[in-house]
Amino acid sequence: MDFAHDQRTEELRATLLAFMDEFVYPAEPATEQTPAETRWARPPVLRELQAEARRRGLWNLFLPGEHGAGLTNLQYAPLAEITGRSPRLAPEALNCAAPDTGNMEILALAGDEEQRRRWLAPLLSAEIRSAFAMTEPDVASSDATNIATSITRRGDEWIVTGRKWFVSGAMDPECRLLIVMGRTAEDGPVRERQSMILIPVDTPGVSIRRGMSQFGYADDDHGGHAEITFTDVAVPLGNLLGEPGSGFAIAQARLGPGRIHHCMRLLGMAERAMDLVRDRAASRTAFGGPLADQGVVREWAAESRVRIEQARLLVLKTAWLMDTVGNRAAHTEIQAIKIAVPRAVEWILDKAVQLHGAAGVSQDLPLARFWAIARSLRLADGPDEVHLRSLGRRELSDRAVR
Amino acid sequence: MDFAHDQRTEELRATLLAFMDEFVYPAEPATEQTPAETRWARPPVLRELQAEARRRGLWNLFLPGEHGAGLTNLQYAPLAEITGRSPRLAPEALNCAAPDTGNMEILALAGDEEQRRRWLAPLLSAEIRSAFAMTEPDVASSDATNIATSITRRGDEWIVTGRKWFVSGAMDPECRLLIVMGRTAEDGPVRERQSMILIPVDTPGVSIRRGMSQFGYADDDHGGHAEITFTDVAVPLGNLLGEPGSGFAIAQARLGPGRIHHCMRLLGMAERAMDLVRDRAASRTAFGGPLADQGVVREWAAESRVRIEQARLLVLKTAWLMDTVGNRAAHTEIQAIKIAVPRAVEWILDKAVQLHGAAGVSQDLPLARFWAIARSLRLADGPDEVHLRSLGRRELSDRAVR
Amino acid sequence: MDFAHDQRTEELRATLLAFMDEFVYPAEPATEQTPAETRWARPPVLRELQAEARRRGLWNLFLPGEHGAGLTNLQYAPLAEITGRSPRLAPEALNCAAPDTGNMEILALAGDEEQRRRWLAPLLSAEIRSAFAMTEPDVASSDATNIATSITRRGDEWIVTGRKWFVSGAMDPECRLLIVMGRTAEDGPVRERQSMILIPVDTPGVSIRRGMSQFGYADDDHGGHAEITFTDVAVPLGNLLGEPGSGFAIAQARLGPGRIHHCMRLLGMAERAMDLVRDRAASRTAFGGPLADQGVVREWAAESRVRIEQARLLVLKTAWLMDTVGNRAAHTEIQAIKIAVPRAVEWILDKAVQLHGAAGVSQDLPLARFWAIARSLRLADGPDEVHLRSLGRRELSDRAVR
Amino acid sequence: MDFAHDQRTEELRATLLAFMDEFVYPAEPATEQTPAETRWARPPVLRELQAEARRRGLWNLFLPGEHGAGLTNLQYAPLAEITGRSPRLAPEALNCAAPDTGNMEILALAGDEEQRRRWLAPLLSAEIRSAFAMTEPDVASSDATNIATSITRRGDEWIVTGRKWFVSGAMDPECRLLIVMGRTAEDGPVRERQSMILIPVDTPGVSIRRGMSQFGYADDDHGGHAEITFTDVAVPLGNLLGEPGSGFAIAQARLGPGRIHHCMRLLGMAERAMDLVRDRAASRTAFGGPLADQGVVREWAAESRVRIEQARLLVLKTAWLMDTVGNRAAHTEIQAIKIAVPRAVEWILDKAVQLHGAAGVSQDLPLARFWAIARSLRLADGPDEVHLRSLGRRELSDRAVR
Repeated sequence: MDFAHDQRTEELRATLLAFMDEFVYPAEPATEQTPAETRWARPPVLRELQAEARRRGLWNLFLPGEHGAGLTNLQYAPLAEITGRSPRLAPEALNCAAPDTGNMEILALAGDEEQRRRWLAPLLSAEIRSAFAMTEPDVASSDATNIATSITRRGDEWIVTGRKWFVSGAMDPECRLLIVMGRTAEDGPVRERQSMILIPVDTPGVSIRRGMSQFGYADDDHGGHAEITFTDVAVPLGNLLGEPGSGFAIAQARLGPGRIHHCMRLLGMAERAMDLVRDRAASRTAFGGPLADQGVVREWAAESRVRIEQARLLVLKTAWLMDTVGNRAAHTEIQAIKIAVPRAVEWILDKAVQLHGAAGVSQDLPLARFWAIARSLRLADGPDEVHLRSLGRRELSDRAVR
Repeated sequence: MDFAHDQRTEELRATLLAFMDEFVYPAEPATEQTPAETRWARPPVLRELQAEARRRGLWNLFLPGEHGAGLTNLQYAPLAEITGRSPRLAPEALNCAAPDTGNMEILALAGDEEQRRRWLAPLLSAEIRSAFAMTEPDVASSDATNIATSITRRGDEWIVTGRKWFVSGAMDPECRLLIVMGRTAEDGPVRERQSMILIPVDTPGVSIRRGMSQFGYADDDHGGHAEITFTDVAVPLGNLLGEPGSGFAIAQARLGPGRIHHCMRLLGMAERAMDLVRDRAASRTAFGGPLADQGVVREWAAESRVRIEQARLLVLKTAWLMDTVGNRAAHTEIQAIKIAVPRAVEWILDKAVQLHGAAGVSQDLPLARFWAIARSLRLADGPDEVHLRSLGRRELSDRAVR
Repeated sequence: MDFAHDQRTEELRATLLAFMDEFVYPAEPATEQTPAETRWARPPVLRELQAEARRRGLWNLFLPGEHGAGLTNLQYAPLAEITGRSPRLAPEALNCAAPDTGNMEILALAGDEEQRRRWLAPLLSAEIRSAFAMTEPDVASSDATNIATSITRRGDEWIVTGRKWFVSGAMDPECRLLIVMGRTAEDGPVRERQSMILIPVDTPGVSIRRGMSQFGYADDDHGGHAEITFTDVAVPLGNLLGEPGSGFAIAQARLGPGRIHHCMRLLGMAERAMDLVRDRAASRTAFGGPLADQGVVREWAAESRVRIEQARLLVLKTAWLMDTVGNRAAHTEIQAIKIAVPRAVEWILDKAVQLHGAAGVSQDLPLARFWAIARSLRLADGPDEVHLRSLGRRELSDRAVR
Repeated sequence: MDFAHDQRTEELRATLLAFMDEFVYPAEPATEQTPAETRWARPPVLRELQAEARRRGLWNLFLPGEHGAGLTNLQYAPLAEITGRSPRLAPEALNCAAPDTGNMEILALAGDEEQRRRWLAPLLSAEIRSAFAMTEPDVASSDATNIATSITRRGDEWIVTGRKWFVSGAMDPECRLLIVMGRTAEDGPVRERQSMILIPVDTPGVSIRRGMSQFGYADDDHGGHAEITFTDVAVPLGNLLGEPGSGFAIAQARLGPGRIHHCMRLLGMAERAMDLVRDRAASRTAFGGPLADQGVVREWAAESRVRIEQARLLVLKTAWLMDTVGNRAAHTEIQAIKIAVPRAVEWILDKAVQLHGAAGVSQDLPLARFWAIARSLRLADGPDEVHLRSLGRRELSDRAVR
């Protein structure tokens, strides 16, 4: 057992930390918004950040294998954490932002040569953006077998009809591709009825209805969350990903890394919050002394540190398991981080907000926005309760010594 | 000891519940907004609702004494709760919305005849709106003795200079009056250095800089929360409320009822959430049955009910104490509800959001918005920790048998 | 609505508080024990306390109707709370201790004249003690329909066979009577198969096997918790309480008051703990000042007060409902206090223990023992989860406006 | 970073698990007690277990360096966890039980040759037992500078006078040695006024007054917790450990490993509880199905697993830090596990108790006893709040990137 990062990770961490200090944090003020404003386009500064990141070798770090930087999950995790300190800019600057990351993984994993040429290549170079359409308003979508959007064959085309919402990324004007989960079969094994299909966003019948909000935030800088209707949308047969019926399996394969990334970025937000807490506690005076001298504030800070440490270790161990025994065998741990990390970070952010008073809930600090991200992740990819139920069932049936 | 409402309260409850069913709930859909939109003007339907409420005798219920409906706190509390079920419309429809309520109380309590004629009368008839400017970005404003905005005499004018934020109501285009807390003395007893002054919103030197957000919400329909600078703002001597140095005392007098109202409206939001929870639990299916049959959902519902009941009883007892022994003697209980109720309701709303999945965090349901209100109230009027500290000190020093 | 006690309650409170100060607290030191000691007999001082309590009119206050003091639940509740401040002595001193109280209620309610003469009379005068045998080790006894002990007729006798445990009171050498729940029918409506039967403790076939502990405590002074086997125990036909099949209904009727009493006594323990907390916080010094000056200690004290107030109000309202609409209609509220109060008091006691350091967990203070009582009540009368489930189901199905 | 145990650890784990199955668990039933019984002598079976453990190379595993098994903290930690599954027998069987372990460490670290010959040797071979006397009833002993017991020189003797309590191990009839912390100086640097001294238990003036309980438990099998007075107790000059004034430094050096051991054993108790939970959930039926099918039970099981995993990782990382950067540099993490682990395990045990109903609180299962151990550890070595305060202060002052 060894808790030190390997050398490549340490080098990349140093490079990334310098990039954050020199380029990312200085660019943050230019991206502020008033409450009245919604802007789903990426801020102009992003192109410059991307060029610089690429120059420094900080590009596509999330993607294992030949198409990406070739890092393991354990190597990438601490880097993802650092990008979480500035979630509006840093992940995108490194071309490591959701939902494009997951979509690139899917295309690298299941796309054929033509699909990779047409969509993966421009995504890898950040020329276009993409969106992932899974959740439907009318069914409990945490169980993918409930998905109702239909994908039916008509001649040499697939016809897609249905309604999706919380389609992350689709409000971005640069979004060109929708990866859509639907049903290609009405019978057969329940986990072999779904498929994923590639739909260019400008295909007739695709209608982006509106942006959905999360606790008042439009999630502008990640391309928002769209509600989209698909009405007799026709695409060529070649747009189906993998074999018909492989949708569920591809979704499962994609989930593990996505959760690791989300969790590590959340920990970066928590660390950013702790930086703000330290500043505030040192500089703000109440009841005759700095906040940092008050017992309650110290307890919050201590609890926050204890929670961060535990959450991070759990994520890192999960990454190690994915690297060593595979995503499937690490299923329990992946569920565990999905449960543990958003909750821990939500708690930390809540205290950070409280410490900052009115400023904490406002647009002047990123804390309330970070909180909304953490809170929403307790629902994304299925509510915590679904994962608790599944993890609990396994725990109650498993007699093996660990 | 008797836990039944008196007859007048029961009658007013019945009248109000009918008004909600016939007018308020049907008007709600017209006030929906997209995330991209911010609108600080009141929705047009409000004038109609106000006319109808007035016709039914549901007007200025919050205000005791000759100027208002003459209810006790204990009589008004359950009515305030009902208005909380539709907080965008109902309080305003009855002319019982913050911050106007507190401002009318102040004017009724401390205003002279001219001040009441010019400002209280049009507020009582809802011709104008008003705002209350207390919090300052640069000091811990929960301790009013920190307030730095200066009110200095120059000839026959008061000159006001300072910066305020989270000035509730000031973004409303119908807002005409700002009641501003500032310092009129630099020495003397620390709680006799503050005064309140009436400043027409169009006075030269008043500059409304921007609207502040609370967790992504602009709090549009309550006139938002403004940041305002006051630069050499001159008003006549007659604009000072009460004697110079009476500001702290007036603020204290105002706090009790305001907290009762906030807490009761929060309980109304919690009840509204429970209605939504019941519908969702009955209609949504997962894992082979309605959510209502799942153990975890039942526990949430039970816990929610237990918390609502306890919180409501505490508020009602506090109202009773204020009516029988006075606001000052009920100080401990007023702090207790300030601590207990937002927290209880926040918990309930969090579970209601979780039960609704993606819809819960979105603009399609009021739950996330209610949550942001409850959460922000843990900071408004001083963070919970200030009240816990004060209540705890009293508890630790008080040996009297209760 | 009125939150003041009526005059009779106030008078009895004053009498009882004086009795506590003059007799009960001074008698406490003589009842201390070492960890090595177990003593199920009542301490000798109790007879003196009982005589004095009786002289002062503080006798059988728990029992409504002709046999007792004739108080309502709402009148008795605050008196029960006061006895909870010294739970080893005060309830017993007033002949208001479980399980005798519940047994007396059952006998007053369902006993025939002969049963009342033989058992109720000596219980009312504290000449004998009694026990209640419901829980069985082999079934989930929170659902009384699972009870397996058989009561079968053989000639003019009832024959009882089964195993019970946690039979409260049965280790007391003065215990003479066991009221035992068993099955008199194997078919018919599931809630009409149980009966209660009176078994003198010295009946052949009754074997008291051992005392059960609760978190290390033998609950000595309440007569402990026995495991008892019943092997072909024969009693006359006249020993059955009420009609065959009435056991479930009698048990239900008994539950409401019992829970009120337990909850109020717990609140008395919480208040006693707060007295200790105040003393400790004032006298103990750490980090350069008394504990009372530390923020964390103040927060605990404040939270404790807020929880006590809310819990007490909920119990009092429940008592009022039982008095005005009956135990059956107050079912939901009775469940609510069963859930809310032990949990609140457990929290308060945990903090009080923590504040006292090593002394807090030891036999030198009553805190750890109180804690064990509160914790065990989360299981007695059915685990909280059973009540949460039932309350939740009702909440989710009930659309009526409250 | 690597989360796998090394080979030696895996081999020792396998040996130890086999020993547990073949010897320890089968010996447990013979050590049960009734609530009425207190027995501070070790159960007779222990000598057999010790012989067998020694034969298998499972002896003094806790002790690094030449005197013990030479394991690192990281190697020993998972073994300590396994012994925690049967805390009454397994640690003692391996001669790895507190407080002897800490005392042996102290003697190995600071003892001179004669001290080691006389005391360390028989402790290493389990011929005698020892106790550690630190806490005093009259001062906040979590701050060792408050210690009031005096150690003064008189001729060629040290004279010890004072009162200690919660002297773990001292009720054991085989206890021969007390290691006592006292003051050898009244001035000079505050952390150089304390010394540790070796006092044979039969020295005149040593009076063992009574055993202290922890939540009703006498902690029989670990030699209890004694209150001891020292009245002019004279020992030779050679009985002082190290230099005069070195007591604080020795205590600090000892704390780290002791906390690691306690935390790992607690995790073993948690795993044992999970085994019981699994059995109960599978075999107990309520509401028409096994408990394992109920949502609330599944959530408890899932939460328990998530908490165990996080707590264990934090302890293991702390062990690794102690091995790689030293106990001093790992100070923050040692505090973190002191805070995090007892709390996590207490939660898990509370749910396990609840799931088992009446049996859970009783002597028939180890759950309530385990709970009392976990709860008491929130106070031992200083209450959590002291560590939170210290950790929080460090967190608020430390700007370094981790």
